Amino acid sequence: MSTQVVRVGMIGLGTVGTGVVKILQQRAEMLAHQLGARIEIGGVAVRDTGKLRDVALPNGVVTNDPASLVRRGDLDIVIELMGGTSDAKRHVLDAIEHGKHIVTANKALIALEGRDVFAAAYRKGVGVYLEASVAGGIPIIKALHEGLAANEIEGIYGILNGTCNYILTQMTEHGQPFADALADAQRLGYAEADPTFDVDGFDTAHKIAILSSLAYGFNVNIEEVYVEGIRRIGTADIQYAHELGYTMKLLAISKRKGGSLNIRVHPVLVPESSVLANVKGAFNAVAVIGDAVGPTLFYGKGAGMMPTASAVVADLLDAARTVVSKAPAEIPVCYHPERAITVPIESMDSTVSRYYLRLQVLDQPGVLAEITAILGRHEISVAAIIQKEPHCEGSVPLVLLTHDAMEKSLQSARREIDALDCMRDESVCIRVETDV
Amino acid sequence: MSTQVVRVGMIGLGTVGTGVVKILQQRAEMLAHQLGARIEIGGVAVRDTGKLRDVALPNGVVTNDPASLVRRGDLDIVIELMGGTSDAKRHVLDAIEHGKHIVTANKALIALEGRDVFAAAYRKGVGVYLEASVAGGIPIIKALHEGLAANEIEGIYGILNGTCNYILTQMTEHGQPFADALADAQRLGYAEADPTFDVDGFDTAHKIAILSSLAYGFNVNIEEVYVEGIRRIGTADIQYAHELGYTMKLLAISKRKGGSLNIRVHPVLVPESSVLANVKGAFNAVAVIGDAVGPTLFYGKGAGMMPTASAVVADLLDAARTVVSKAPAEIPVCYHPERAITVPIESMDSTVSRYYLRLQVLDQPGVLAEITAILGRHEISVAAIIQKEPHCEGSVPLVLLTHDAMEKSLQSARREIDALDCMRDESVCIRVETDV
Repeated sequence: MSTQVVRVGMIGLGTVGTGVVKILQQRAEMLAHQLGARIEIGGVAVRDTGKLRDVALPNGVVTNDPASLVRRGDLDIVIELMGGTSDAKRHVLDAIEHGKHIVTANKALIALEGRDVFAAAYRKGVGVYLEASVAGGIPIIKALHEGLAANEIEGIYGILNGTCNYILTQMTEHGQPFADALADAQRLGYAEADPTFDVDGFDTAHKIAILSSLAYGFNVNIEEVYVEGIRRIGTADIQYAHELGYTMKLLAISKRKGGSLNIRVHPVLVPESSVLANVKGAFNAVAVIGDAVGPTLFYGKGAGMMPTASAVVADLLDAARTVVSKAPAEIPVCYHPERAITVPIESMDSTVSRYYLRLQVLDQPGVLAEITAILGRHEISVAAIIQKEPHCEGSVPLVLLTHDAMEKSLQSARREIDALDCMRDESVCIRVETDV
Repeated sequence: MSTQVVRVGMIGLGTVGTGVVKILQQRAEMLAHQLGARIEIGGVAVRDTGKLRDVALPNGVVTNDPASLVRRGDLDIVIELMGGTSDAKRHVLDAIEHGKHIVTANKALIALEGRDVFAAAYRKGVGVYLEASVAGGIPIIKALHEGLAANEIEGIYGILNGTCNYILTQMTEHGQPFADALADAQRLGYAEADPTFDVDGFDTAHKIAILSSLAYGFNVNIEEVYVEGIRRIGTADIQYAHELGYTMKLLAISKRKGGSLNIRVHPVLVPESSVLANVKGAFNAVAVIGDAVGPTLFYGKGAGMMPTASAVVADLLDAARTVVSKAPAEIPVCYHPERAITVPIESMDSTVSRYYLRLQVLDQPGVLAEITAILGRHEISVAAIIQKEPHCEGSVPLVLLTHDAMEKSLQSARREIDALDCMRDESVCIRVETDV
């Protein structure tokens, strides 16, 4: 049996890093068995060496000097778990320059700086492994890059942010308003003190940019991804949607038609019978449609210490296999410095979707005719309608579900409708996706 | 750019083989791009060279002599798609002997002869790739072996046979009796003329034996897997289960507790709210529970030309990477000739489960007391009960849901109950699984 040792350095020992150390310590024997080599933690860089978590590391392993760590000649692989982009990028590029393979859970680093990182890796012939950057413990990167490699990927639908899915599930199942559900999520550790990055959809946008790039082999510019979060979702709309047979989700939608990409993040109503509608709480799910395999779905925990550590260690094993076999590391085409093609994303204006519209209108004759006339002029046809009995001061909610319409037409119609005298409040508009 | 060529031979050109050729031809450029080498079909062995499918192959590629094909010095990889065990095993061993890597979709070959095949592969230093043998296009083997490699796998719950799931879905959604749903499945090509292997659960047993072996790293003897099919499922039980909030599925259940394995295939009632209950029609799904990642689920088409070809080509890419990099091929621990440990499966008698029992009893006083007394004596406690109005000749269905009980006790109690004078028909007993 081989006694080869693969030596690993880690920068960052927060929640995920602690989980990684735990797995490497508890499962050392099994991992060595599988790999045919032993993985050894050669160094861990932390911000404050006095404040160590509940893991025991040998003397001399812990340092507060990441810059020196990533240059050490005795390390084969560097795991980057510090987060953020500027320091992380500097250390990662330095580690690559010193011949280390990189394992990272940093979605911002990959989504924003992926091309620079992979260009450096390509020059030095090392690998960059990023499973943990999207959907925590779900092995979706490996599935896209290897398991479904025979397919032309036609689309991806993802519930990629556990915070948002937890909040929407609470709102749906217990009728909690957004603010209360958010407060609960914060209390339970599912949401940060500043929840912007999650609830406004940016986290999801980073992840779908990475998944789309890997799936289609094109480089996706995250700046072009349309993003809308869940702050303005009301329980009333969740309730009306339910009456129509739909569930509210924050969805990343990514579709490819030939060389054209449509990628966006926003609240979506999905049919209650769909598998995605049944993904609840802090879970993530990614539906991938391939031309050969058809629809597939990958489901699991998208965050947390051990699920994310599970993905980091899986990547570490892949990186260690490359170290052991000395096989050339692969650079994904989408981040390849010589082969990557950046494909522009279709503008939101020309996106076609079905829509849910809620209009708070005066309960008086002619209102429905006025509204449907505007929709008709914009070539938007109505698929379903609910009008409730009035409950406050003569105004009444009118809920419409449209057939396919172009975003630009819908928004024009909506502006005209919002300007009508009969409107008591701004209209609410939520896209509907029935292909999931 | 490298112009290395990886040469592939294929034995069997049925449905899946045709799909593989289609993908290799249509996506040749993209696959070469990803691999850094070109994949070339060097030879295809068919039974009747006069009866070619709708694929065009160059002159000289097609042969009716698999025995010579697998020995050809110019081939790197052999794809085995002939099915069955005796001829397939002979050709595969011969191909290995001649230094070829193997890609196979043959679950029987792996489940029954896996140790012999891998022992030969180990001696020759070649790889055996088997993604297509379980769950068609779902990359579940790769997930278990690589994506979730950091985990100790605690359990697997699989809907692994599309034929059975299609039939049960028809019975559930349209109230079709088993025979009618089977006939429909046969008409649609979802079931074979002789459906035994599918509907009696053997196909599912082969697949869960393979998944369990790979997941736990123990060799599982398929002979020890308890198997019960869906032939005796009636629509009445599906209906009563629905009233109790459960859906009927043919499930493979595999649980590990330390060194002890519990692996079985039988009809199961699962809660309607569970994700597995919402896997419908010919789809497959595999839920995997890992100690780090928690619960995960993988969903997609488990059979058919293109989904299975998707898995074969993914494996082919992995095998081709090994050819290109000359990296050593990995032998899964469970099939390793020197490391594999065969672990016995817990007997069905000592399995603990909840149960659904339907008893067709005389509608007379004292019956319920008699039955519950028997259950009590066997330490089986009742969780729910439904008794319907009588609808035929004074007999009435009594439906019971038990708490956890031992199989042996349950079956003893059932024999006593079946012997009672008040029983109008043999009892129906279906296991209930609430952990999914």
